[in-house]
Amino acid sequence: MTVRMDQLSWVEYERRVRKDAPVVFLPCGATEQHGPHLPLGTDALLASALCEDVAGKIGGLVAPALSYGYKSQPKCGGGNHFCGTTSLDGQTLISLVRDAVREFARHGVTRLVLVDGHYENQWFVTEGILLAMRELGKDSQLEVMRLEHWDFCTEQTLASVFPDGFPGFALEHAAVIETSLMLHYLPNLVRIDLIPDEPPADFPPYDMYPTRTDWVPASGVLSSAKGSTAAKGAQMAADITQGIAAAVRKEFKL
Amino acid sequence: MTVRMDQLSWVEYERRVRKDAPVVFLPCGATEQHGPHLPLGTDALLASALCEDVAGKIGGLVAPALSYGYKSQPKCGGGNHFCGTTSLDGQTLISLVRDAVREFARHGVTRLVLVDGHYENQWFVTEGILLAMRELGKDSQLEVMRLEHWDFCTEQTLASVFPDGFPGFALEHAAVIETSLMLHYLPNLVRIDLIPDEPPADFPPYDMYPTRTDWVPASGVLSSAKGSTAAKGAQMAADITQGIAAAVRKEFKL
Amino acid sequence: MTVRMDQLSWVEYERRVRKDAPVVFLPCGATEQHGPHLPLGTDALLASALCEDVAGKIGGLVAPALSYGYKSQPKCGGGNHFCGTTSLDGQTLISLVRDAVREFARHGVTRLVLVDGHYENQWFVTEGILLAMRELGKDSQLEVMRLEHWDFCTEQTLASVFPDGFPGFALEHAAVIETSLMLHYLPNLVRIDLIPDEPPADFPPYDMYPTRTDWVPASGVLSSAKGSTAAKGAQMAADITQGIAAAVRKEFKL
Amino acid sequence: MTVRMDQLSWVEYERRVRKDAPVVFLPCGATEQHGPHLPLGTDALLASALCEDVAGKIGGLVAPALSYGYKSQPKCGGGNHFCGTTSLDGQTLISLVRDAVREFARHGVTRLVLVDGHYENQWFVTEGILLAMRELGKDSQLEVMRLEHWDFCTEQTLASVFPDGFPGFALEHAAVIETSLMLHYLPNLVRIDLIPDEPPADFPPYDMYPTRTDWVPASGVLSSAKGSTAAKGAQMAADITQGIAAAVRKEFKL
Amino acid sequence: MTVRMDQLSWVEYERRVRKDAPVVFLPCGATEQHGPHLPLGTDALLASALCEDVAGKIGGLVAPALSYGYKSQPKCGGGNHFCGTTSLDGQTLISLVRDAVREFARHGVTRLVLVDGHYENQWFVTEGILLAMRELGKDSQLEVMRLEHWDFCTEQTLASVFPDGFPGFALEHAAVIETSLMLHYLPNLVRIDLIPDEPPADFPPYDMYPTRTDWVPASGVLSSAKGSTAAKGAQMAADITQGIAAAVRKEFKL
Amino acid sequence: MTVRMDQLSWVEYERRVRKDAPVVFLPCGATEQHGPHLPLGTDALLASALCEDVAGKIGGLVAPALSYGYKSQPKCGGGNHFCGTTSLDGQTLISLVRDAVREFARHGVTRLVLVDGHYENQWFVTEGILLAMRELGKDSQLEVMRLEHWDFCTEQTLASVFPDGFPGFALEHAAVIETSLMLHYLPNLVRIDLIPDEPPADFPPYDMYPTRTDWVPASGVLSSAKGSTAAKGAQMAADITQGIAAAVRKEFKL
Repeated sequence: MTVRMDQLSWVEYERRVRKDAPVVFLPCGATEQHGPHLPLGTDALLASALCEDVAGKIGGLVAPALSYGYKSQPKCGGGNHFCGTTSLDGQTLISLVRDAVREFARHGVTRLVLVDGHYENQWFVTEGILLAMRELGKDSQLEVMRLEHWDFCTEQTLASVFPDGFPGFALEHAAVIETSLMLHYLPNLVRIDLIPDEPPADFPPYDMYPTRTDWVPASGVLSSAKGSTAAKGAQMAADITQGIAAAVRKEFKL
Repeated sequence: MTVRMDQLSWVEYERRVRKDAPVVFLPCGATEQHGPHLPLGTDALLASALCEDVAGKIGGLVAPALSYGYKSQPKCGGGNHFCGTTSLDGQTLISLVRDAVREFARHGVTRLVLVDGHYENQWFVTEGILLAMRELGKDSQLEVMRLEHWDFCTEQTLASVFPDGFPGFALEHAAVIETSLMLHYLPNLVRIDLIPDEPPADFPPYDMYPTRTDWVPASGVLSSAKGSTAAKGAQMAADITQGIAAAVRKEFKL
Repeated sequence: MTVRMDQLSWVEYERRVRKDAPVVFLPCGATEQHGPHLPLGTDALLASALCEDVAGKIGGLVAPALSYGYKSQPKCGGGNHFCGTTSLDGQTLISLVRDAVREFARHGVTRLVLVDGHYENQWFVTEGILLAMRELGKDSQLEVMRLEHWDFCTEQTLASVFPDGFPGFALEHAAVIETSLMLHYLPNLVRIDLIPDEPPADFPPYDMYPTRTDWVPASGVLSSAKGSTAAKGAQMAADITQGIAAAVRKEFKL
Repeated sequence: MTVRMDQLSWVEYERRVRKDAPVVFLPCGATEQHGPHLPLGTDALLASALCEDVAGKIGGLVAPALSYGYKSQPKCGGGNHFCGTTSLDGQTLISLVRDAVREFARHGVTRLVLVDGHYENQWFVTEGILLAMRELGKDSQLEVMRLEHWDFCTEQTLASVFPDGFPGFALEHAAVIETSLMLHYLPNLVRIDLIPDEPPADFPPYDMYPTRTDWVPASGVLSSAKGSTAAKGAQMAADITQGIAAAVRKEFKL
Repeated sequence: MTVRMDQLSWVEYERRVRKDAPVVFLPCGATEQHGPHLPLGTDALLASALCEDVAGKIGGLVAPALSYGYKSQPKCGGGNHFCGTTSLDGQTLISLVRDAVREFARHGVTRLVLVDGHYENQWFVTEGILLAMRELGKDSQLEVMRLEHWDFCTEQTLASVFPDGFPGFALEHAAVIETSLMLHYLPNLVRIDLIPDEPPADFPPYDMYPTRTDWVPASGVLSSAKGSTAAKGAQMAADITQGIAAAVRKEFKL
Repeated sequence: MTVRMDQLSWVEYERRVRKDAPVVFLPCGATEQHGPHLPLGTDALLASALCEDVAGKIGGLVAPALSYGYKSQPKCGGGNHFCGTTSLDGQTLISLVRDAVREFARHGVTRLVLVDGHYENQWFVTEGILLAMRELGKDSQLEVMRLEHWDFCTEQTLASVFPDGFPGFALEHAAVIETSLMLHYLPNLVRIDLIPDEPPADFPPYDMYPTRTDWVPASGVLSSAKGSTAAKGAQMAADITQGIAAAVRKEFKL
């Protein structure tokens, strides 16, 4: 039985929503450069794959991913000057999320989780949720969880994945975490042979506009993905999916 | 070699855009009830499948589909009161299209085709294109084609698919055309056993708000999908993909 | 006694709204080229004239027309590149309709009909109504009908008006229907001597942006208005006004 | 030969725009209570009538009026709580004006005059013009004049119309100026017998929200229209039309 | 004890709001040229100072001023072409006011006064209040007063401040009233030696766009500030603060 | 000589902009609860004070602060449910920043720094800058820096300020950094006696909507401000102002 909403008929979807009050997951991705070795759809693909795993564990459903996200920034996604990166204005993403949340509430969904796979989306997704909640009013029974999936990697796992010490999520764009997760979920979309071996990017504590494109490695990779393996991906995917499942069970009292 | 943009790295995407000036296809779908026998994702799934076929023929690329569309209307999509139908406000869809077109222009794409698989999207997609074109200005080299895919079925095919006479596209929601195309492309998502056998809906020449839900069959199917077959789907898919390919070759001088 | 809201004092308007719960008609027009023989205001003028006729039959009222509409498209109105065509952005028209509907609800109007005389307006008018209804909430007593007036021509009349067979509404811009209706209602604004005698335009099943202006006859007329007469106009006006009156009586239980 | 744009064909309109660079007038009205003796359409009707007179003098053209305006305020228009008053949100009016100005520029119009007949419109009309001018850019040849028509009454005329002293424009809503102008232009829409004889409203130097409806006379008339005559209307209309004509000649170098 | 909200902790603010239902004042200013002798912040500084005085009298609180306002217009503020004038689009100011009013209502504030110190703000502030009130709905207990502070100068004071006759508020930008008020409140920000001695500007009864910058004195001062004194400022400040205090007591039943 | 733009006349401002091409600083604050010991205006007050210090060092100017910011979030600012916190919708803040940046560009400013003192503002400020830059176009000479001021504290200073180890910026709302900076800049606004002694808040790696207010300490302080001193504030202020000055000199080639 599929967890993908887009593969269910409305009759089946309604039956499940009415009967089970399932958790609905909305993956929030992007179309964004991820170096020469990962595909442009990485953020939506990973967020969707993780959501499907969690939904499978807890009887949830996964809505179609938001495939376009907020503008890539140099220090977290390489910047919006790359060819292929296809981004939305902030207000567009806010409206997209607001409309989707409003509709899930109309369906009778009471447990909604927005799983963000693109760091730059975070605040616009938050605003979209808040606008929808304001519109729905105090009597709405909808509760919404919002998260970035990588935050559920445990310290033990990070210590294991980064034997030389975890440098933090800041430069993890198209690097070991995302590459390993892709090797776990969608290995045939990874060109392991093309992973660049550049030193980590070094950014100052400020941003400049127009983008100083020379701050960003030409590959778009902010720190090396060398050392990525499917096994590491599996380990992190286990953390993330178990972590989200536990959070969902706790907060939604499943 | 894949035609799916989300499966390409930015390096490969850029290489192809620079070298081939490929046609980029943007499927515009919806998450909308399609009766008890077709999945909620039908419009995006079909538009994507058709785009991939056309792109394969002409060396094009297919961007990630817009998975959410404008509000379903009773007379063309059953209405927005169905559970599972998940729709956007008009301005949200306008902005989404505007932003995407603007970004493809930034990439250097000069040939863009928006393939609409959800009738209600049409005018908001048009406005999104027009806003982007105005912003890009007269010096832009981008040309955009916009179409609904079913309009490329030939009269001969329609005569063959509907031996009792083609009643027109108006009631073809979740009916023979979409069901046959799904049987051709994604048969395992079709529940042929659940096709309702209701008479065609009969609508007056006006709309009422709030929606008169009793105008719409409870199944959401506006005319029967009985008689749908994968062979009919293949025949129509051939028409549509050849028709779009020919149109693209002609207009973009390929 | 006038049916025109703009000619009534607020005292008289209020008296009628409170006493009779009259149907209020809002004509939705455009300022758009209609060939060399019809005036730029054709869509608003005709929609207003028809509304006044219907209102006269059923004791309704006619609000001031929306004189500007959505952007003319090549295949239905000739395109927005003509001098004189004066169009609104989609969001502007949506907001205009939303605001008007909200205000009629505040007046205590419960029966509102938006009569569209410009094909391109349709979806933005729909969205404006939907936004207003959402804002008004479920307790509102307002019901809204929306229609394009030409859809009320009967088959018999079309057979009579087009003795060689009715080619469909698609190319009827500034052609026999609109010209005949203008000859019926406002003959002194028609330059019958200037009707072009061009063959019908032939459009492919897609749109191109920027507009391929060479697809559109230089006159702006999509099919010939030759054969237009006031008598045909009277016959169609009778159909339309009787048809709308009947629809209104049925749906609003007058 | 008509000056009304909506009565001209696009061919004739274009011919005149290309040949004469005529001044185009856009009347900005409202649908707003004007007491028991004047119709709801007063502001648009008067602004249009005055524009037609000026256009006749100087070979100009008059575009269809904006028939809906910004929300009536207690101290200038009686307030937006009256039945029949049908108002727009500020952003809607801004967008409407912006879109219209943009389109006249596209036509090749270089001399545009927005004639405001509804005090509350003023700032939103201004913003609409400014947004259009910013979008058109510095190379645009369009020049725009904006005015309220009553400001062209001369002191001599005001002294004559108000023999007891002109109390200022502030309370002149549905009072002597508008009633006299209507008696001049559209006497059959004036119910002289219903003019209320109330003392002038007395407002404090602040506004309260929600509207203190008890500040406003129940009739909606802010000061008495007693003493209105068609002759006074003719005298003021002469001032206004000559004044605008002179201003236009001067500023547009006709 | 301070009246400035930005100097209070939330605990103290909440305590006062809960206990005293204090009047909250929101000064609405601008960053706008005020001639060579007054600072760019004049409008916000004066509105804030006056609010603090009134709040001191009646136990009110003063929220942080809106420091940026609507676009300066030639005839009231010199025009938006001056260097240093830093203005907002109309919709931005509308939204800013709407959001602030919404938040004060959430705090439990029931008595709110928007004190405008920049003439051009007036209508956008009004619309912001109206949008917030509509959103808050009929059950909200919030009442809002809106005013321009100079309107509280008494006739006696104006006669005294302008011994040669008060020419009206129209040209009082950076002139005697504002300069005297600044000499009263913030004398060290006034360069009395730089007051230009130009004749009053003379404007026609219409506006032109693009701005006719030659209509405006190069100094930005619309009439001379000669004769400004701190004593006059004190006299006007007394009028204004007593007038607002009296209005607030009356309308909010303190 | 003041660095505050609101205290300069436009003549002096223009003179400096033309002559020196000074760096203009725009402090971005908020009106937000900061515990029982810090005032609601903390974010704007600190950002302004730091900007003034930097401007003094390098001959820059400081524009009036944005006093209202984006909605406080539980995990960084305590949440938007506190009384006194007065927040803007995302789009409002985006527009505010866009308009301000556009105006500074019109002034001829080429070096602009937005100094954010409220973590939640970050992405909306970014979007506002990006929208302005897109509108200004590629020929604009404006360069913009954006930063959060605390990011310029050096590791040495943090080690000294937090002798038990710096726990990271995440919980530093109304805690040691902000309290010490306020003790340095505005000690009379700090109620050191009211600093709560609560353990640090402990948040899960996700957000819930509606806000789980029981996650947040009732005081609004996310970790204790005990140990705050003016000396620590001075040390951090030195880091921040020197760091920003150095960054500005480097990037703007002063």
